[in-house]
Amino acid sequence: MNTAAPILLTPGPLTTSARTRQAMLEDWGSWDDRFNALTASVCAQLLAIVQGEGSHHCVPLQGSGTFAVEAAVGTLVPRAGKVLVLINGAYGKRLAKICEVLGRDFSTFETAEDEPTTAADVDRLLHADKAITHVGLIHCETSTGILNPLADIAQVVKQHGKRLIVDAMSSFGALPIDARAVPFDALIAASGKCLEGVPGMGFVLANKQALAAAQGNCHSLALDLFDQHSYMARTGQWRFTPPTHVVAALHEALLQYQEEGGLPARHKRYADNCQALLEGMADLGLRSFLSAVIQAPIIVTFHAPTDPRYQFKDFYERVKAKGFILYPGKLTQVDTFRVGCIGHVDAAGMHAAVKAIGQVLQEMCRRELARESL
Amino acid sequence: MNTAAPILLTPGPLTTSARTRQAMLEDWGSWDDRFNALTASVCAQLLAIVQGEGSHHCVPLQGSGTFAVEAAVGTLVPRAGKVLVLINGAYGKRLAKICEVLGRDFSTFETAEDEPTTAADVDRLLHADKAITHVGLIHCETSTGILNPLADIAQVVKQHGKRLIVDAMSSFGALPIDARAVPFDALIAASGKCLEGVPGMGFVLANKQALAAAQGNCHSLALDLFDQHSYMARTGQWRFTPPTHVVAALHEALLQYQEEGGLPARHKRYADNCQALLEGMADLGLRSFLSAVIQAPIIVTFHAPTDPRYQFKDFYERVKAKGFILYPGKLTQVDTFRVGCIGHVDAAGMHAAVKAIGQVLQEMCRRELARESL
Repeated sequence: MNTAAPILLTPGPLTTSARTRQAMLEDWGSWDDRFNALTASVCAQLLAIVQGEGSHHCVPLQGSGTFAVEAAVGTLVPRAGKVLVLINGAYGKRLAKICEVLGRDFSTFETAEDEPTTAADVDRLLHADKAITHVGLIHCETSTGILNPLADIAQVVKQHGKRLIVDAMSSFGALPIDARAVPFDALIAASGKCLEGVPGMGFVLANKQALAAAQGNCHSLALDLFDQHSYMARTGQWRFTPPTHVVAALHEALLQYQEEGGLPARHKRYADNCQALLEGMADLGLRSFLSAVIQAPIIVTFHAPTDPRYQFKDFYERVKAKGFILYPGKLTQVDTFRVGCIGHVDAAGMHAAVKAIGQVLQEMCRRELARESL
Repeated sequence: MNTAAPILLTPGPLTTSARTRQAMLEDWGSWDDRFNALTASVCAQLLAIVQGEGSHHCVPLQGSGTFAVEAAVGTLVPRAGKVLVLINGAYGKRLAKICEVLGRDFSTFETAEDEPTTAADVDRLLHADKAITHVGLIHCETSTGILNPLADIAQVVKQHGKRLIVDAMSSFGALPIDARAVPFDALIAASGKCLEGVPGMGFVLANKQALAAAQGNCHSLALDLFDQHSYMARTGQWRFTPPTHVVAALHEALLQYQEEGGLPARHKRYADNCQALLEGMADLGLRSFLSAVIQAPIIVTFHAPTDPRYQFKDFYERVKAKGFILYPGKLTQVDTFRVGCIGHVDAAGMHAAVKAIGQVLQEMCRRELARESL
């Protein structure tokens, strides 16, 4: 594949196609009909990915994915609401932090970083605390790459008559979610992840009834999704200056997404990338942190080599010099590093990355051996 | 000048140089040292434009300029503070709206849209209400293009021992502001204005002491400038995913800004653009809404032609077909349209725009005359 060097094996920003980047070579008037049509097309395509046209609105938002998560909580959880936040990594913790800063009542349920939350957990927690109005779930925790059982949890939340807010940042577009079968009030993702756009905007797929009832909830003007949607529905325009070039890049990335074959094809490519990565790294003696059954094909956490000569910074710089950018670990208890499977890269690219990693590990040992023999 | 067609005569997004857009053809790892260096260079250059290195921090923020304005108010005005908002247009009103949504106490002082706020007004208002802690001012109101006397107002605010928050969205980089002589707690602008970057990020030049005292003020996690700055000072990285391509474009735009001759050169080019526009439009019989003495060389509001055959939408589409995108008026009382003087365009471009406008006005009349003669 034609990609700009180095290849980013990171969970976003990631490697995009040249065609996506070239879509940024034009300036767009944010008031102009042509740009409004671009926004409308992006929103329609995003809804279609989860079959949400009938039930949800797509509300795009300037900023990073976290801005969109905060906007969803602030807009859709009434000020008297209470959020149960399900945590098994850094992004679950961030969701709880958002509730805290916003002054929304919340409780947390935390499992180990290699242990998915179960629907049975959620059932028990909702039975135990009737004050809970909303459940917050991270679909795929980018801290580790762990996949939580969204569909099962969504059913339990619905049975209890509660509302679900899903951070699908790292899964949207690659892992199947069907809004007709999986009830949610908000599903949140961003431009620069599995859709392979560039970073700079998030979006919330918001249940139509929930959004219509959300006027006046939000703690913020900029992050108010009710206002953002109302204005866009009325005018076709963004309320405040949109990141025009980022929107144009996402539009172009979505066209390529459809041409590739949509979600099944994107999922398969990432699954193949993940398989190539896991097998190649196993051959190098590098162990994956998660068991295969809970590993999403998005990002893989590896235990750091036990060799005392290994240091991440040195390792990172050497792999980068060979054309691949890795990602540091995010676990507090265990020394790890991460390798993304997503972006404009295929299994051949992953094989090349594994080869580079193998060469670097050899170099790091040889250098040390040479030093010892002085 | 080499610009992408059509030329945007709008107050941002505006026309950027091909070189600035081409800087977006590379993907950047948000964790990588090379990207951190880019961010640091952007921040240093932004501070240098107002001679603020000694007194202020530059805190970049994802999103549009309004996100940065809300972040500045939320972070720098304590929850028990009170803001005097000076209004003579839509952006002043928006600043008041932000205070309202955030639950910050505020009062407003509104003058007509063609009447600058004066330092004497502010002096009187601060004498009358000792509860005011902060004054909020729009330097150049994009609604009309009116310039408010920032330096004089800043002195009065300081004499009263109060703090100043300046929305310099449309003036930053083109109109001189010297942080050593003009005391302010926050000066706010964005990437896609007079610096001629692409839209997608704002920034706040925040007084160091004021920012250091602002921990825990903010109503939002995403918009918390204290957190944003602390994290960046510690790690060199943005707290949440940065709009990497937008940052790269701004960096490239700033290099060109310096090469052009910095603020004096940028100011002169825009002043020449404004002069060419005003003279050419006067020749067409189109009157400027503001008198010359309070007109900033940023955006000019024109009275709509009085001919009953004039309709903005038709006018806009016809001028666009000739390669120029205009901007609608934003006044409620008077029918107007706006033409920007900023962006990667020079006086020759403005002459061409005026010529196109003249041709369109003739066309619109001729068409109508032809219809009348049927």
